[in-house]
Amino acid sequence: MSSHLDISTLFNPRSVAVIGASSDPAKIGSRIVHNIVSGGFMGRVYPVNPKGGTLAGIPFSRKMEDIDGPVDVAVIAVPAPGVLGAVKDCCGKGVRHALIITSGFSEVGNRTEEAAITLHARKHGMRVLGPNIFGVYSAAASLNATFGPSKIRRGSVAIVSQSGALGLAMIGKTMMENIGLSAIVSVGNKADLNEVELLEYLVEDPNTEVILLYMEGIRDGPTLVKTLSRVARSKPVIAIKSGRSRRGAMAAASHTGSLAGADEVFDAIMRQCGVIRAESIGEAFDLCRTFASVPIAPGGPLLIITNGGGIGVLSADACEKHGLPLFDDTAVLGEAFAGVTPDFGSTRNPIDITGGATPRDYDVALETALKIPGVGGVLALYCETAVFDSKALAGILKKHSSLYYQAGKPVAFSALGGESTERTIEELRKARIPVFSDVYSAVFCLSALDRHFNERKRPLPGTPEPVVGLEVINRICEKALKKERFFLLADENAEVLRTAGIRCPPAGISTSIGEAVHLAEGMGYPVALKVISKDVIHKSDAGGVVLTLENRNEVMDAHEAIMRNVTTHQPEAVIRGIEVVKMAPSGLEMIVAARRDPVFGPTIMIGLGGI
Amino acid sequence: MSSHLDISTLFNPRSVAVIGASSDPAKIGSRIVHNIVSGGFMGRVYPVNPKGGTLAGIPFSRKMEDIDGPVDVAVIAVPAPGVLGAVKDCCGKGVRHALIITSGFSEVGNRTEEAAITLHARKHGMRVLGPNIFGVYSAAASLNATFGPSKIRRGSVAIVSQSGALGLAMIGKTMMENIGLSAIVSVGNKADLNEVELLEYLVEDPNTEVILLYMEGIRDGPTLVKTLSRVARSKPVIAIKSGRSRRGAMAAASHTGSLAGADEVFDAIMRQCGVIRAESIGEAFDLCRTFASVPIAPGGPLLIITNGGGIGVLSADACEKHGLPLFDDTAVLGEAFAGVTPDFGSTRNPIDITGGATPRDYDVALETALKIPGVGGVLALYCETAVFDSKALAGILKKHSSLYYQAGKPVAFSALGGESTERTIEELRKARIPVFSDVYSAVFCLSALDRHFNERKRPLPGTPEPVVGLEVINRICEKALKKERFFLLADENAEVLRTAGIRCPPAGISTSIGEAVHLAEGMGYPVALKVISKDVIHKSDAGGVVLTLENRNEVMDAHEAIMRNVTTHQPEAVIRGIEVVKMAPSGLEMIVAARRDPVFGPTIMIGLGGI
Repeated sequence: MSSHLDISTLFNPRSVAVIGASSDPAKIGSRIVHNIVSGGFMGRVYPVNPKGGTLAGIPFSRKMEDIDGPVDVAVIAVPAPGVLGAVKDCCGKGVRHALIITSGFSEVGNRTEEAAITLHARKHGMRVLGPNIFGVYSAAASLNATFGPSKIRRGSVAIVSQSGALGLAMIGKTMMENIGLSAIVSVGNKADLNEVELLEYLVEDPNTEVILLYMEGIRDGPTLVKTLSRVARSKPVIAIKSGRSRRGAMAAASHTGSLAGADEVFDAIMRQCGVIRAESIGEAFDLCRTFASVPIAPGGPLLIITNGGGIGVLSADACEKHGLPLFDDTAVLGEAFAGVTPDFGSTRNPIDITGGATPRDYDVALETALKIPGVGGVLALYCETAVFDSKALAGILKKHSSLYYQAGKPVAFSALGGESTERTIEELRKARIPVFSDVYSAVFCLSALDRHFNERKRPLPGTPEPVVGLEVINRICEKALKKERFFLLADENAEVLRTAGIRCPPAGISTSIGEAVHLAEGMGYPVALKVISKDVIHKSDAGGVVLTLENRNEVMDAHEAIMRNVTTHQPEAVIRGIEVVKMAPSGLEMIVAARRDPVFGPTIMIGLGGI
Repeated sequence: MSSHLDISTLFNPRSVAVIGASSDPAKIGSRIVHNIVSGGFMGRVYPVNPKGGTLAGIPFSRKMEDIDGPVDVAVIAVPAPGVLGAVKDCCGKGVRHALIITSGFSEVGNRTEEAAITLHARKHGMRVLGPNIFGVYSAAASLNATFGPSKIRRGSVAIVSQSGALGLAMIGKTMMENIGLSAIVSVGNKADLNEVELLEYLVEDPNTEVILLYMEGIRDGPTLVKTLSRVARSKPVIAIKSGRSRRGAMAAASHTGSLAGADEVFDAIMRQCGVIRAESIGEAFDLCRTFASVPIAPGGPLLIITNGGGIGVLSADACEKHGLPLFDDTAVLGEAFAGVTPDFGSTRNPIDITGGATPRDYDVALETALKIPGVGGVLALYCETAVFDSKALAGILKKHSSLYYQAGKPVAFSALGGESTERTIEELRKARIPVFSDVYSAVFCLSALDRHFNERKRPLPGTPEPVVGLEVINRICEKALKKERFFLLADENAEVLRTAGIRCPPAGISTSIGEAVHLAEGMGYPVALKVISKDVIHKSDAGGVVLTLENRNEVMDAHEAIMRNVTTHQPEAVIRGIEVVKMAPSGLEMIVAARRDPVFGPTIMIGLGGI
């Protein structure tokens, strides 16, 4: 049975047992049973407690083995010392998935117990979520197996959270922000199941359109990268990764025991995977709202329409900040909007139909924008004015949201004003229309859309070719290490590069002026001379480099000068020789560096750079 | 009469005339009269319309001269062609301030008419606000002379806006965000009055605690800088400056005809003035709310308390991003919080009292934090949990807000959860307690507080000493310009620096090897040799520089090498000589550059930098 089929049972179980059920409403075990029942779960629910009892009219089983019929999922909410026993009972009963709510394992240093649990479960083919989690919600099964809020808004956003309290608070916040959920999963200590398997399920789940990850640490970086690259090309994935700062990483270590790699590495990898990174919960929710309500579109430059010049200027600033290109054909815009825009407005992007614009003007402007073929998306801004009441706004925005959706063109809105405007925003959000109260947020989300659309078009990166001659390279490095030298000399370096298939200019080592001239004549001018000495790392500073030598006289002079400079600068330096290198023709200078990230393994930094 | 006394009449008039009053509720002139009357203005209101009429029981005067009694402020809302006439009438009547609502002047290129209005007003000692404005609100006089919302929340924030529609929408938004206003002023085209005079008034106004500026362009940069430096040391000033990007600046030019200088210059100047820059309206309002509700404090490192580990990690990230130092004495914290924090929590900053924390635990933690002397401010985070209902939160936050205020220690809160949490946030905001729904916003505001507190302690920068020997420097530059050379040669450069009182190493120009050696021996080794030629700007690239010459032989070799290199590299170059410079001892390398900003005038860039 594949892991994929396996995990689907977690979201679509026929029956759920709650071990540690209780009729005391203050207990977590009671809350979970209550949420499962009141959430309308269609399968069977089996509360389990050795002391017996009933809740919501369901009598408790005293032991797992007493349950009559198969159990797909067991929620374990007993104190930590009883968890291993409960896991054994579950395995005995043939449970497919155990959700271990209980905390007090690896997050407080109790790794042995956690490992024993995982080992036992694995032996018996049972998958474990947690420990240290708040549970799982699955819209597909109407299953709310969490101890959080009992009301969850159904929708198309799936949340996977490493943090418990934050995850629970997010459920409440999604209700308030009118964001509907297809699933929410607490991964906690990730003793067994982690983001990778959940992503594999969610990418296939027809109820899920957008995936939001909250992460503090990553277990298996390379596998996550592979999975994310694939998943993010088919569904938008939004990631909040906290612990990005030194202090944040320290806090994460004491919160979920997570090891944070370098944040710039995480950031670059997410970008390469096509994952959209959000800094805060607010940003992440804005993105979810946007992605859940726009068509998959080809992307392209944005057109801004506004009845307030000031917010038009602010949104142009925001587009530049977020790298979102603006539609630029002033001739097309001038013609299209001449009739809609008064003289003191502007037909340049942002189109300023001015504070004098009526609802009718706004409607016509949105209609006009939809018809311009090169426009990839539209941002419509609204300031509450005396001549344009926000009550009229709702109808216009609903109409155009639907027209734009049908035309496959993304549109977002931003509205600023008083009570009536706020009520309109609320109403429109309930109708899944992306309206923002801040233009920067609107532009940030539209730029994320644009990146996602472009990302979908990019082919998956292939597996890199293995390096040829790894043994040769290793031998060179080992030789240096044996001498307790932790860097390579110029000639060793050149050999490594050549072995790896990277072209280098011809070069050779001379130990005398005659030899240098001989080498230079052999390779042709111009050449450069560089000192080779394990004692001289900063060669230029020591006067050990001379460039652009055009003939034998210059080579001779340069050779002498280098020997003199280096011995003056560092009298103790042992000079192994002088490297003669053919000058490369001028081109684009680049820097390449490598580092081993503790989470993602070997990483390469590539950039522009000369001296 | 000083301009300061003068402008105070604008905010405290005994009587207001509205020229262009109308009984047609669709007209702006009607709306303004309605707002003045319904806003509870205590002075006299004189609607003026040649056709007569009444509104709100007030009969219209047909002409300004018909008004019986003095008029302090006149609001002019007649079509553009009638404005100059109305201004003349006002001057005839001895009006002190004219607010010109009407648009259609310099913002659409009609500069002549605008200049004529200003000139006439100035001649008669009348100050003009606008044209192209939405009016003025002054809490001191209960005067709402705008055509915006009739209900304005009274409070301590003053807003000065260059944008009309945005300013009006902001009034509505302040109502929704529970931000009270002491004044709101629309400056429009700034034909006469601008931010400078308004700041002079607001800094003295006892009702105003916080000042918010929305700017697109600046008229008189140097004066604004002087005023802001002073004002921002006594009251927090928040600035939104749009048009920061290339596209935004273009949009600003077509919106208010504003000329934008370089954004990095504006940014640096605001920072030096102690002004807090906000990017968006949302950020600006968050700042206003915070500054209007915390005590003036000495500043210092922050302590974070949380019942959710995840948001604790996020807030630590946010502190690093915004440069806000965290309180770091782990021994003090360990002792203070040992009793409040469970084993699986953390007594390191952020203090994680965990999702198991009760209202009582939270209360004790806030009490504990207040007593730690080195803590400069506290950020308390809350996640809605099963054991800590947000209804209990309101009482705790109210109590501690007041205790912290009395102790002179800033505190801010961030709360994440569902409906009950949102209602608590709303309730607390009405009580002027700074609660955020996003930790990044909370930290951003606390970092701004910290910067403001530090800014207040800094003495005002003095006036720089005038440069000595400006004539000498000008003569050197003119000589180069006469030869159509737009850069200075090394020796000219050195002379400029020396004249300006900047120490340079000894140097001289040689035209032969002998002379070079003579100079070197005179100043002492080591020396450097540099080619001097108007044709060789990039001297190093041409092999025209040799450093660290230790004796006469090396100087001789280097001289020869430079002559050879340069003639090989640029055979056509005219070599004026070779500069011999004594090597400076090694130190911190810096870069200094100068630029003339179109708005602020001469600016200097200083940074670290070698090659």
